[in-house]
Amino acid sequence: MALAPISTVCRKRHAGRRWERLTMPDLDALFWPRSIALVGASSDRTIIRGRIVEAVTLHGFDGPMYAVSRSHEEICGIPCYPGVEALPGPVDLAIVTIPAEHVAASLRACGKIGVKAAIVISSGFGEERGEAGAARQREIAGIAREFDMAILGPNAEGFLNARMPLAATFSPTVVHVENGLRPEASRARGVAVVSQSGGIGFSFFHRGRPKALNFSFVVSMGNEAGLDAMDVAGYLVEDEETAVVLAFLEGVRAPEKLVRVAERAAGLRKPLIVAKVGRSEAAAAAAASHTASLAGAARAYDAVFRRYGILPGEDQDHMVDVAAGFAFFAGRLPSGTRVGILTPSGGAGAWLADVCEHHGLTVPPLDAETRATIDRMLPAYGTSRNPVDVTAQVIFTLGYAPALELLARAPGIDAVLVAGSLSHARYIERDMENLVRIGASVDKPVIFCGYTRADPHAVDLLARAGFPCTTSMANAAKAIHAMHEYREFLERRVGGRLRPAHAGDDGKAAAPPETGDARTWSFRAGNGRVESALPETGGVHRRPVRTDESGEEVALPETGGTRHRLARTGEDGEEAAPPVAGDMHPRTPSTGESLARSLREAGPVICEHDAKALLSAYGICVPAGGLAADAGEAVRIASALGGPVAMKVQSEDLPHKTESGGVALGVEGKAAVREAFGRIMESARAFAPDVTIEGARVERMAGPGVEVIVGVSRDPDFGPMLALGLGGVFVELLDDVVLSPVPVDAAEAREMLRGLRGRRLLDGVRGAAPADVDALVALLVAVSEFAVSAGGALEALDLNPVIVHPRGQGVSVADAGIVTAAVRREV
Amino acid sequence: MALAPISTVCRKRHAGRRWERLTMPDLDALFWPRSIALVGASSDRTIIRGRIVEAVTLHGFDGPMYAVSRSHEEICGIPCYPGVEALPGPVDLAIVTIPAEHVAASLRACGKIGVKAAIVISSGFGEERGEAGAARQREIAGIAREFDMAILGPNAEGFLNARMPLAATFSPTVVHVENGLRPEASRARGVAVVSQSGGIGFSFFHRGRPKALNFSFVVSMGNEAGLDAMDVAGYLVEDEETAVVLAFLEGVRAPEKLVRVAERAAGLRKPLIVAKVGRSEAAAAAAASHTASLAGAARAYDAVFRRYGILPGEDQDHMVDVAAGFAFFAGRLPSGTRVGILTPSGGAGAWLADVCEHHGLTVPPLDAETRATIDRMLPAYGTSRNPVDVTAQVIFTLGYAPALELLARAPGIDAVLVAGSLSHARYIERDMENLVRIGASVDKPVIFCGYTRADPHAVDLLARAGFPCTTSMANAAKAIHAMHEYREFLERRVGGRLRPAHAGDDGKAAAPPETGDARTWSFRAGNGRVESALPETGGVHRRPVRTDESGEEVALPETGGTRHRLARTGEDGEEAAPPVAGDMHPRTPSTGESLARSLREAGPVICEHDAKALLSAYGICVPAGGLAADAGEAVRIASALGGPVAMKVQSEDLPHKTESGGVALGVEGKAAVREAFGRIMESARAFAPDVTIEGARVERMAGPGVEVIVGVSRDPDFGPMLALGLGGVFVELLDDVVLSPVPVDAAEAREMLRGLRGRRLLDGVRGAAPADVDALVALLVAVSEFAVSAGGALEALDLNPVIVHPRGQGVSVADAGIVTAAVRREV
Repeated sequence: MALAPISTVCRKRHAGRRWERLTMPDLDALFWPRSIALVGASSDRTIIRGRIVEAVTLHGFDGPMYAVSRSHEEICGIPCYPGVEALPGPVDLAIVTIPAEHVAASLRACGKIGVKAAIVISSGFGEERGEAGAARQREIAGIAREFDMAILGPNAEGFLNARMPLAATFSPTVVHVENGLRPEASRARGVAVVSQSGGIGFSFFHRGRPKALNFSFVVSMGNEAGLDAMDVAGYLVEDEETAVVLAFLEGVRAPEKLVRVAERAAGLRKPLIVAKVGRSEAAAAAAASHTASLAGAARAYDAVFRRYGILPGEDQDHMVDVAAGFAFFAGRLPSGTRVGILTPSGGAGAWLADVCEHHGLTVPPLDAETRATIDRMLPAYGTSRNPVDVTAQVIFTLGYAPALELLARAPGIDAVLVAGSLSHARYIERDMENLVRIGASVDKPVIFCGYTRADPHAVDLLARAGFPCTTSMANAAKAIHAMHEYREFLERRVGGRLRPAHAGDDGKAAAPPETGDARTWSFRAGNGRVESALPETGGVHRRPVRTDESGEEVALPETGGTRHRLARTGEDGEEAAPPVAGDMHPRTPSTGESLARSLREAGPVICEHDAKALLSAYGICVPAGGLAADAGEAVRIASALGGPVAMKVQSEDLPHKTESGGVALGVEGKAAVREAFGRIMESARAFAPDVTIEGARVERMAGPGVEVIVGVSRDPDFGPMLALGLGGVFVELLDDVVLSPVPVDAAEAREMLRGLRGRRLLDGVRGAAPADVDALVALLVAVSEFAVSAGGALEALDLNPVIVHPRGQGVSVADAGIVTAAVRREV
Repeated sequence: MALAPISTVCRKRHAGRRWERLTMPDLDALFWPRSIALVGASSDRTIIRGRIVEAVTLHGFDGPMYAVSRSHEEICGIPCYPGVEALPGPVDLAIVTIPAEHVAASLRACGKIGVKAAIVISSGFGEERGEAGAARQREIAGIAREFDMAILGPNAEGFLNARMPLAATFSPTVVHVENGLRPEASRARGVAVVSQSGGIGFSFFHRGRPKALNFSFVVSMGNEAGLDAMDVAGYLVEDEETAVVLAFLEGVRAPEKLVRVAERAAGLRKPLIVAKVGRSEAAAAAAASHTASLAGAARAYDAVFRRYGILPGEDQDHMVDVAAGFAFFAGRLPSGTRVGILTPSGGAGAWLADVCEHHGLTVPPLDAETRATIDRMLPAYGTSRNPVDVTAQVIFTLGYAPALELLARAPGIDAVLVAGSLSHARYIERDMENLVRIGASVDKPVIFCGYTRADPHAVDLLARAGFPCTTSMANAAKAIHAMHEYREFLERRVGGRLRPAHAGDDGKAAAPPETGDARTWSFRAGNGRVESALPETGGVHRRPVRTDESGEEVALPETGGTRHRLARTGEDGEEAAPPVAGDMHPRTPSTGESLARSLREAGPVICEHDAKALLSAYGICVPAGGLAADAGEAVRIASALGGPVAMKVQSEDLPHKTESGGVALGVEGKAAVREAFGRIMESARAFAPDVTIEGARVERMAGPGVEVIVGVSRDPDFGPMLALGLGGVFVELLDDVVLSPVPVDAAEAREMLRGLRGRRLLDGVRGAAPADVDALVALLVAVSEFAVSAGGALEALDLNPVIVHPRGQGVSVADAGIVTAAVRREV
């Protein structure tokens, strides 16, 4: 009894959205139902069951509605039936508010009569301590799979589809909305909200609606037994009237879906503004979302957000104000950071200028021509410099429009902020014709930033003319900044630099991260659906299986006994043609398969010498050197290298060589090499008597340069993350490290460099030569390729230090270590 | 015809405020007038003159009011008289709105009939380009002096005294106020506002009034021809109902008054929350306040704010929300940063926890006993951990009070934030009795932080119970943080650490900074009044004269010709007993007079050797050494010192010795010293052939340690500022420098150290020994003493680097240079 026609209608309405139809239950039936059954209705408006009835009927849902109730014949004009199976017509959406213990039976009955979607408002499921609630929630998840039903909740606050309109929620913000669900007239495009907290989700609506924002959808996820927030975000991104999606997330079940939705949103040029909570221990405990280290998890999210153009949300007003900027000026994002400020108050203008510069914008003086034109309308105490203080007198007599138009057309200005009093609508009302004309024709964003509270009528008028209002100077500045950053992100992306994560540089798909919502994936696969890669995201490979290194599927070498030696070249020193520092011409990389196999066959730790052999096969430059088992071999290798050498004991059980006394630097001459070899081997043996030492690596001393740290670590959510830090005191004292998900291309590597606080160290300070940044960038790209090829077999890679030599002289990986996935099986 | 009785009344009302009566015109007559003359009244409410009449009459001023008008017999019930001299009774305050060109004559007439105070609303004065307006403004300043009249403006928006009430302003925020000027019932103490921008000043009222804040005064300063913002701030701080003062400042005319007011406010335990704009070039140009470098000026303000407990205001809502915290919990500031969060929404609680930790607070788990008690009231899906998620159900049934009371009593919690929906008053109304009881008895701050917009009735109820509301999570967190910081500041202050600036450690007053509002001072002096030092500020010496090094008053040595050699000891090397590195036992400092005289007698630059002689007289440790005029002398000094030496050419014209090749380090042995002497002298002469070189300083090489930079520079507003930075890459790349006004005692020096981002470098990293922080602290105190004694004769002092040796081994001032005030006469 599924309502095929609706899906068809919706499919037409949302052309180009086929992928969801292939991978999802019918979200159109959920969000655009043609008919509704209220399972558990009441006429008592003081309880949730009654408030839902009130909300659904209040805002004029015009399809058939049925209620399920044994005790009533009708509730608020809605005919009642004693059970789901007794409903007289086809139903798209069931809104379920009955006690938890009866929900599963009702949902099953719904499934049987072909109800395609349900919101379970009832609580008493996974949110409760104890097994009973969890079991009830599992049952609902099972019903969703069994009937391919789009289920929101349980324990959800419902949703608002303001376009339809349908208020399937008991949120008081929607029940008691003042001026209608949508502004009467606003040039703002739609803003959609998805939230794992109902209270927070609807609070965006409650705060944004008086700002004349045009909300399309507000969706509260509840416990996510069926759909999760990313499923819904993916749907909202496709909505044709939606230009921005706000999300509040406590935890992300399937991080790869976040990446996929972000990619799709970027393809549609619709920003996602996301608050991801759980940075503090208290919040993480509250959200119970993470086992990984908090700081690490927060950093990984930051890196993924930066990479995929997701804008981080700071608080509700910040998110609403930034969303407003996009909603009003979606196609007119600022191409730079130069802000023109128009104000009738010198003080307000000066303060806003300070706030703008504090948030990364500039407030440059206007060009002479614009100034001369503005000057003609100013009294003797105004100024056209920027901030343009037109004086209150000019606003009283001429209104905002004349100066605004000039400022918005000024050649050196990318965006305009109007710092005025919005406490009454007088001067705006009088000026509407001109403001409407400017709003329609301006090609850069203009935001009104009230220094008083904003009068609702003034806000409505400005929205009608096409301008958003805020009363926060900081948010006005942040909105402009975010809009500019997003434009730059889109331009980088169109410039071909953005590629999906987990795909190798050669286009070949690498293994996806191992964690994530396997349940969701297999349930989808269980539906027998074929997933097709989105053309927009360029071949994200979504295999619904775990990679083969995650456990029983692979035969693993013993970790405690004899170690498998890695295949390597040049390990005997004299015969090899070792790579030379500065040699960054990439070699033909080994295939990912062979690298991953090598890593899987190794123990949990791969020592420096073997790690360097693997790295050099990826064109990663390591100093020439070889492994010496005895002093004679050390002397031979040192002689072949010429000049001073570094000598370091090699053992998989001694990752911290320096501590053990196993390192000698700048050793030169046969006798010295022989003496050093004996000394470091002895020290290491004395330090750790029970450890197998494979010998000492003898390698050419790296020349001088700036020390950096390059690494890869596997984030449990997002897979391999490339890390770059400045070495020495910077990383230790200032934690000056930048992360990025892999793969990383040259432009992205340069972005990472820009993110370092101490980046000027690489430009050459105190008379030092500028460092070879190009070689460092190439190294980052090569390490990224290495990480992609290694896939889940690599737990961590640590190149510390990497010496960045003066420009033209390349980089040297002075030390290296690898931790393989085997370490996870050991703990 | 002055109204002595009023002053007497007010003096009684504001007991202990005698200092203003001695130094100020009669501000009571301005702010608490018994009778008013409206000079330029109108019944047309669309113009400023009419809006003032409306505001004054609307809010029920109940003394005699007269209007001056030739064309009317009465205006809005106010009797009119043709001129000021025709007024029938005594007048305290004239509100002047007539055209600029007639203002002076009217004010003069007012003066003659004994009007003690005036607000000049009229514009057309100093704010205009051109000389005419400036001349008119000077005339008003002269009238203020002549008649000892308290004049606000011109070009002011007037003021509101909400206590009286008197709305002597045309601000629409006051004319159209919704629920009365003050909340009907609010436990908040008063908030006063002083602003150099009328629009911004009244915007605090407009934003804060709906938050049930209890504004006592809002004062717009205008052009400050008479009173300046600090005069008014000083008055507001004394107001008995005022607990917090907000200030918006574009420029500070007399910085020493800012310090004085801050000191007085701290004595009264009333925080000043100040927005000082002009950090950006655009804002500074708009405010036209500074000639000094912007970054430097902003830094100096930051340092002075930190030192005197002034809280920096970020934006209007921030200032209002922080003020609310103080207004409700003035005597109950949090003793720590541990926040308990109470919420019915897990999402809101988690987000607020993140925001709290981001802003320097902690959200620790509650103690077991409190948890157990809370748990008893929670359903299975609530949590008592912290954030305490009591669930919406508990709020519906029990309200906020029971859990709030437990949380506020929890032993490990210093403040409570309630993250609830404030969109309706239902649950608060029902709970009032308990909330009132808790509000009266709680001994730590509790702030309600609404995740929705706040319903006005809910806000009013909470204010009545004693709780402030905000809708900004960030501001809630910042308010708690600021309240805690202020408490710590007060405790430090009570602990005796705070002393007024510009006073020597020996209690002897040093020279005040040379800039400042000399006009204001001399005008006061011209009134024949005697300034008495405030007991609270402990002897700030306010001499209304410029110090003697500012120009013609002093006979200066030639700067181009022969230089006066400073008296010094030990400059011939062998005969002196040079100070030894690590020798931090302070010697008896020279008197300030002799130091200042030495500096005044020197040229603009004092080279290292002479600078070190001056410093060592202040117990500042410099490496042992002497000045060698020839190679033989160099050898003798080096032999006497023993070990390797540093050799540096000395010339007042070569402050950058290294550039000239004039430095040799680690020189050891007679031949090497002889060779090095010849080489560095030759290099320096080749580098700068026309320069007089006095010889080379030969000194003991300083041992290893952490490099820091210590300096003093003269801020044009606040006098000598002590600077501390970490050396090397930190200062160059990260600008890691902390400033403080002098004098600085040991505790303040430690505060400075805590302000360094790279401070952990001093703890010993990478196996290095912890540095001798005590010796560095002693050095900072000694340098501060040096700066105080030097007074205005010192332009800058640069100790770079200072080597901080391992603990117990002291510090070494490896290089030093002094720039004297003479440099200002050269430019």
